[in-house]
Amino acid sequence: MAADRYIAVTGGVGGAKLALGLVQLLSPEEISFVVNTGDDFEHLGLHISPDIDTLVYTLAGQSNTDVGWGRRGETWQFMQALKQFGGETWFNLGDLDLAMHVERTQRLRRGASLTDVTRELANALGVQYEILPMSDAPVRTMIVTANGELAFQHYFVRDRCAPAVTGFRFDGADTATPTSLIEQRLDGSLAGVIICPSNPFVSVDPILAIPGMRERLQRAGVPIVAVSPIVAGTAIKGPTAKMMTELRIPNDAIAVARHYRGLVSGFVLDTQDAALEPAVAALGIATVVTQTVMLTLGDRQQLAADVLRFMRRLKSSND
Amino acid sequence: MAADRYIAVTGGVGGAKLALGLVQLLSPEEISFVVNTGDDFEHLGLHISPDIDTLVYTLAGQSNTDVGWGRRGETWQFMQALKQFGGETWFNLGDLDLAMHVERTQRLRRGASLTDVTRELANALGVQYEILPMSDAPVRTMIVTANGELAFQHYFVRDRCAPAVTGFRFDGADTATPTSLIEQRLDGSLAGVIICPSNPFVSVDPILAIPGMRERLQRAGVPIVAVSPIVAGTAIKGPTAKMMTELRIPNDAIAVARHYRGLVSGFVLDTQDAALEPAVAALGIATVVTQTVMLTLGDRQQLAADVLRFMRRLKSSND
Repeated sequence: MAADRYIAVTGGVGGAKLALGLVQLLSPEEISFVVNTGDDFEHLGLHISPDIDTLVYTLAGQSNTDVGWGRRGETWQFMQALKQFGGETWFNLGDLDLAMHVERTQRLRRGASLTDVTRELANALGVQYEILPMSDAPVRTMIVTANGELAFQHYFVRDRCAPAVTGFRFDGADTATPTSLIEQRLDGSLAGVIICPSNPFVSVDPILAIPGMRERLQRAGVPIVAVSPIVAGTAIKGPTAKMMTELRIPNDAIAVARHYRGLVSGFVLDTQDAALEPAVAALGIATVVTQTVMLTLGDRQQLAADVLRFMRRLKSSND
Repeated sequence: MAADRYIAVTGGVGGAKLALGLVQLLSPEEISFVVNTGDDFEHLGLHISPDIDTLVYTLAGQSNTDVGWGRRGETWQFMQALKQFGGETWFNLGDLDLAMHVERTQRLRRGASLTDVTRELANALGVQYEILPMSDAPVRTMIVTANGELAFQHYFVRDRCAPAVTGFRFDGADTATPTSLIEQRLDGSLAGVIICPSNPFVSVDPILAIPGMRERLQRAGVPIVAVSPIVAGTAIKGPTAKMMTELRIPNDAIAVARHYRGLVSGFVLDTQDAALEPAVAALGIATVVTQTVMLTLGDRQQLAADVLRFMRRLKSSND
């Protein structure tokens, strides 16, 4: 029988930080990452998978810590030349990063699945951990605003999250399916599920929108623990708090816990939000309070250890 | 009525050298360049037009004189990353150069013609001269060898011209047509045609293989002058001499003149080949002997001046 294996559900930079902590403690046989592809898009004829790439680069030790996204040692010659030609330059594509997109696009065109291509490209950078796209079928997160819908990257990068959000739509989700590899990971050997501190609305919800995904997670009968991406009323990274305000949801960790109610059995609060613990507990969700702000590699590893300890505690109290 | 206008027929690096000389002497209203697209190819999902790009970069003052091809100030980050991924690295694509291919491919996919895209991208680099792809329809030069056919770039770059050539096939040429802009340039205002010192078999012949092209040139009733790409039995650049040996054609300028017999009225020989003048003249082709080896910009301009003077002489002797 296969060893118990965790699944971590993750989006972009915030989730990848915890993922890096988790791989310090778990072997490739002990954890798989299920990654949002709702912000994938076609740009300049290339298939770009921002969240997959963030995780691959992070686990490969190749993430660009100077700018907070993209690849280490990146250069921008291509972008400069593209600008001369009047090309679309609102989405920055580094010279190194381009190779990922060009090679991925090539392999997809030749008929490989996104799951296979992701494994091959991650392996090429030395990453042995399973990085599983949430689906091999295209799902595209659409940001609903008062002025109509925006494709995610148009909202996020081109328009810098300026438009006020009124809702979300996951185009293609209704006909997408979890991959067979994800189904396999959700079988009897599943030890627990970690929902990384990613944006609940545009990083985690697209994954949960794949038909059957939420139900399979719930039926697995294992601890499901979410780490709050909101700390002291603000998002560590990205537009989560801004979105919550626009959606007229209180922008605090309680609201995030409420968002995940019915799915998660545990919720991790930052020490700055210790006072919110009773309110989360009142939702019927177990809590743990610890430092969730991850500045150093040590912070990442400590949070990962706290999360895993919390999950084991929840599991033993279930048994 | 439009001013008289020359056409220069050209392939890659050798032709672009003379082109650079010609633009020192003629305004954008006085010359158009008709360029081989037989060595265009699809690579990594990109439409690459090597001869067009060589001419664009050359006329833009952007050619990479260090390596003899590609773009000035080029870097190779993309290629290094592509290699890590196990991508196809036999064709070098610089970071700057990539922008040309990505943007061209995008615009072609959106329905623009290669003629339009070439004009737009050349203009973006400050080139006002007309650079006309020989056709907007795909024509692909196939190198016939004892072991079967090779796509041109596979022969030229990947296999470094190693396979022995037995012939050529211009795939798609039978259904291609000259562009309307080329037809327009071949009308009554045509002053003369210069066949640049490009490879006769794989740079110039693909152009002449477009149905109607050779006939239109012949019927134009203007001087057509070729500059020999073979000097003292060797090619200044590329596999021309090697191909001639393999095709059992003497690799000298006489054989090039013979190749163009029936099309050209004049032929430019290098001073090193002055002794061949009577043999070319015996083919019924007027000759001029000058320095055709172009090392400096001055050399390019001098050869261009000699060619234009020769054409005016041929024209007045026709009149």
